[in-house]
Amino acid sequence: MFLFFAVEIARGIAYFDETESRHAMKSLRMTEGDTIHFTDGKGSRYAGKITSAHIKHMSAVVSEVIEMKIPARPDICLAFAPTKSSDRFEFMVEKCVEIGVLAFQPFISFHSDRKQVNTDRLRKIAFSAMKQSMQLHAPVVYNTLSYKDSVKFFADRKFRNLIAYCGEEGLPDLNGIHVRDENEFCLFIGPEGDFSRKEYEFALENGFSGVNLGPNRLRTETAGLIGCHWLKTMFY
Amino acid sequence: MFLFFAVEIARGIAYFDETESRHAMKSLRMTEGDTIHFTDGKGSRYAGKITSAHIKHMSAVVSEVIEMKIPARPDICLAFAPTKSSDRFEFMVEKCVEIGVLAFQPFISFHSDRKQVNTDRLRKIAFSAMKQSMQLHAPVVYNTLSYKDSVKFFADRKFRNLIAYCGEEGLPDLNGIHVRDENEFCLFIGPEGDFSRKEYEFALENGFSGVNLGPNRLRTETAGLIGCHWLKTMFY
Repeated sequence: MFLFFAVEIARGIAYFDETESRHAMKSLRMTEGDTIHFTDGKGSRYAGKITSAHIKHMSAVVSEVIEMKIPARPDICLAFAPTKSSDRFEFMVEKCVEIGVLAFQPFISFHSDRKQVNTDRLRKIAFSAMKQSMQLHAPVVYNTLSYKDSVKFFADRKFRNLIAYCGEEGLPDLNGIHVRDENEFCLFIGPEGDFSRKEYEFALENGFSGVNLGPNRLRTETAGLIGCHWLKTMFY
Repeated sequence: MFLFFAVEIARGIAYFDETESRHAMKSLRMTEGDTIHFTDGKGSRYAGKITSAHIKHMSAVVSEVIEMKIPARPDICLAFAPTKSSDRFEFMVEKCVEIGVLAFQPFISFHSDRKQVNTDRLRKIAFSAMKQSMQLHAPVVYNTLSYKDSVKFFADRKFRNLIAYCGEEGLPDLNGIHVRDENEFCLFIGPEGDFSRKEYEFALENGFSGVNLGPNRLRTETAGLIGCHWLKTMFY
């Protein structure tokens, strides 16, 4: 079953953008009267019948609300320095959405090889992963910030902010931090050359906790996925 | 620091294959007398000096044993049905080696789109990930088996054998199985269309335990990585 994403649902009618419409008409060869399943990206899944099979703006009448989900806890944001190869961080975002991570903050740090992120492309990848994994909450990819701005942004939001850092011995791993009474996490993952010492200290000054992600040296994209999943499993 | 892999170490001399030799000579522009670090793939890391800077068969005299590691527990084997796109399962193997999974068993099951796996290529990827993540134990990629043969193989080996299956409600997740007194796991991950019911039952008949890997529908490669990592974190 394919899950569509409706950009708007009003007065019982669901509206779809060009990508979704084209997919329905061209790839799936759907037409008026066909039943489709779709989400509003806010937690609900609907069934409906296509009323306008237009290739650019399909619409459907809602026939049933199949489920309404509240977002899974904890709410995790992954803040990451993009890897040199865009494949790698795109893969990470896709996988993270699959396991239920719904917010992403790219940032540019001192050791970042890559200074630009195509966030539009990343949003598409995240959306596609949401639908593929049958989730009903739309992932958010924030615009890229400098490292300092991203630290301040999450410090202000009073998340439980964690920073994975390899340059300090003796940091606790995620089993070693007390998390059960927290609801919102942001995990910061550095670039290939890790955070600089100054950057790490800047995070600590802003209330972050340093963590390690296990005994092995991990690539950025592995660290991001593994770290988020580790947090998730502690709440299952 | 780059970690080389020595195919043989005898009488204080380490020998390298063509790939490693060429990398040292061509990419890193090393020459006789240069210091290199290398592993035997059995848990030891050495420092040595290049004595023969031959582009096809470099050798080095061992000057120091820097560390000897016993393999991290638990010992995990990931048995998986290859995904249609080889990128995806290759990525999974790379990431699994990074987190310390050291054995892989590809198998062909009922819903497998792909019937062949390039295990030589997979071995190279696994090796390269081992070196990149500075691990000292060589990963093993077994030759591809049929699903039934792979189940029997691991049943005979008396591993704690787990099979991830989406077709049954109420299976425990990995937090819900008692694992602490186990040392060796094999986790079976199915293809895009999951295991067939018959295949699942065949595994149960052979002493496997069915598990689920969390609330979301995961792709094969995500399930493999996430499942192995979950087991790992329970032993940190």
